Amino acid sequence: WLKNAIQTVTLIPGDGIGPEISSAVMKIFEAAQAPIKWEKRNVTAIQGPGGKWMIPPDAKESMDRNKIGLKGPLNTPIAAGHPSMNLLLRKTFDLYANVRPCVSIEGYKTPYTDVNLVTIRENTEGEYSGIEHVIVDGVVQSIKLITEQASQRIAEYAFEYARNNQRASVTAVHKANIMRMSDGLFLRKCREAAEKHKDVKFTEMYLDTVCLNMVQDPTQFDVLVMPNLYGDILSDLCAGLIGGLGVTPSGNIGTNGVAIFESVHGTAPDIAGKDMANPTALLLSAVMMLRHMGLHGHAKKIEAACFDTIREKKVVTKDLGGNSKCSEFTDAICQRVKDMD
Amino acid sequence: WLKNAIQTVTLIPGDGIGPEISSAVMKIFEAAQAPIKWEKRNVTAIQGPGGKWMIPPDAKESMDRNKIGLKGPLNTPIAAGHPSMNLLLRKTFDLYANVRPCVSIEGYKTPYTDVNLVTIRENTEGEYSGIEHVIVDGVVQSIKLITEQASQRIAEYAFEYARNNQRASVTAVHKANIMRMSDGLFLRKCREAAEKHKDVKFTEMYLDTVCLNMVQDPTQFDVLVMPNLYGDILSDLCAGLIGGLGVTPSGNIGTNGVAIFESVHGTAPDIAGKDMANPTALLLSAVMMLRHMGLHGHAKKIEAACFDTIREKKVVTKDLGGNSKCSEFTDAICQRVKDMD
Ligand SMILES: CC(C)[C@H](C(=O)O)[C@@H](O)C(=O)O
Ligand SMILES: CC(C)[C@H](C(=O)O)[C@@H](O)C(=O)O
Repeated sequence: WLKNAIQTVTLIPGDGIGPEISSAVMKIFEAAQAPIKWEKRNVTAIQGPGGKWMIPPDAKESMDRNKIGLKGPLNTPIAAGHPSMNLLLRKTFDLYANVRPCVSIEGYKTPYTDVNLVTIRENTEGEYSGIEHVIVDGVVQSIKLITEQASQRIAEYAFEYARNNQRASVTAVHKANIMRMSDGLFLRKCREAAEKHKDVKFTEMYLDTVCLNMVQDPTQFDVLVMPNLYGDILSDLCAGLIGGLGVTPSGNIGTNGVAIFESVHGTAPDIAGKDMANPTALLLSAVMMLRHMGLHGHAKKIEAACFDTIREKKVVTKDLGGNSKCSEFTDAICQRVKDMD
Repeated sequence: WLKNAIQTVTLIPGDGIGPEISSAVMKIFEAAQAPIKWEKRNVTAIQGPGGKWMIPPDAKESMDRNKIGLKGPLNTPIAAGHPSMNLLLRKTFDLYANVRPCVSIEGYKTPYTDVNLVTIRENTEGEYSGIEHVIVDGVVQSIKLITEQASQRIAEYAFEYARNNQRASVTAVHKANIMRMSDGLFLRKCREAAEKHKDVKFTEMYLDTVCLNMVQDPTQFDVLVMPNLYGDILSDLCAGLIGGLGVTPSGNIGTNGVAIFESVHGTAPDIAGKDMANPTALLLSAVMMLRHMGLHGHAKKIEAACFDTIREKKVVTKDLGGNSKCSEFTDAICQRVKDMD
């Protein structure tokens, strides 16, 4: 399996610690002889004709050609009217499914063990529609938009994901007791998808109940599917259970194989350039990417090397309870990868 | 302080285990010689002229006269178009602030210790506006309504609460990076209230970040204030940290002293009538009520008796790790209350 044809991936190193952790990932991929060629692109937003915000043409062109991207953290733009680049990327490439596996990491102690779940978030509409109005002075409305098409697409995705990843159950997360029409539509589409996937168990649960049960016993959950904002919240909550955004991978999945994998932590400007950053979240996102590309052997090897290094605790970064630099942690993983051959 | 004038409170025992736990509370109040007279009312919704759902006139009249209510769990109506009674009560009496203290309970082990925070939830608008439309077939919108008036009212309430309860900080919880206008308005009102309460520290945090930080270290939070849906979620999450809805009190506060205190767990039909229910959440809600009425001595005594009984673990209900019946747990608390005199 080391003989695969080389595939090109668009790499968006990002800001702050982005370049360092991207270098770490590239180094580990090289050690593992992963058949990936990186094409680096920047994605500072630009304004096109009519003031429309867009990602730079060369980044767009690269993604259109390669279909697959890996992305580090991006600065949140502060200019008024400037969109979040993360959201713009999801929108530009119609990355409708945000997938975040949360799996307890041996050797990284949190109050929880044996967490092993995946949040699947609708990534294109809902509370993120961006439609807002001032009705009269002091009265504002934001519109949550739920469509049959997007709900069906994400519901189907969740069940297909469960089936393809040997997961036993899907829980639809909603507040259809309050938002009877919008969450009601979302829930109906989940029920319909469940009908088509009788091999996967289906349950429904209120968002508040999920949050309560989640902190009491996260091991009861498997795959969870939900509208945009609920996914934003639950995915961060679940990341917290296993150690935070520094160790949690994420994938944004579109149609026809298009996907961008990303670490969802911040740019950590305070430690940027100091060789202190933890590259785990980006590395595990890159591992998700390998699986998405069918490179399961390489994925397994790199993931094992990463987890073994963390479990051993001898050469890990500060946030993982060690004293090592980013480069030392990276080298330790590389060594393990090589030792596996 | 045992000589206070007797005040009448509207008691809504509720459904399922509601009557049992209400009896438990009444018994403990009697043992503590709390100067409360109970006026029992049912609140099954009725349809008024024009099909409008309302709470029964005698319950409304009782609340209007007494201003203060204590409420057990209510069945969620399943009939289409039937409103949630909980929401109808909040609306009918303009109970704009939902207050839920979450404090770790000694003797009831969870993964967290020293949790001591309060969620303050805007209770009248936001995602709970109930305004929804089908735009075209398969496209639904729900409207989140944020007003200056309601935002200002809840923001002021949060800071006043912090001041009156010796709490050091208020955190505004929002997604103003996404819902720039609606959550933006809410946040602005919090900032303005903060300006007027310089003795209380003010911070702002994204909802997703709060969820993540909450499960990693809840002790960093004090008073949290937020729009309706975020409060629904966060209050349940926080309840989970200290042991669930069975031990978490709740108060719905309106203007001019009007308030309804309630346990927010379900009706538990499976154990109803079996003398197995845990009355703690309703009892602690009743303790909040006493404080609201200025009866601090009685509040302290009953609260201490409840916590001591739980800490000792000798006579507690099953869900609290014991073998005792509801009536035995209740009697144990009564005995302690009497022993304190
Ligand atoms: C950066 C921000 C716009 C984004 C979101 O709210 O979706 C982030 O929280 C995430 O979850 O990827
Ligand atoms: C019963 C339900 C309508 C209610 C809500 O969603 O507000 C409940 O979850 C609560 O938090 O009091």
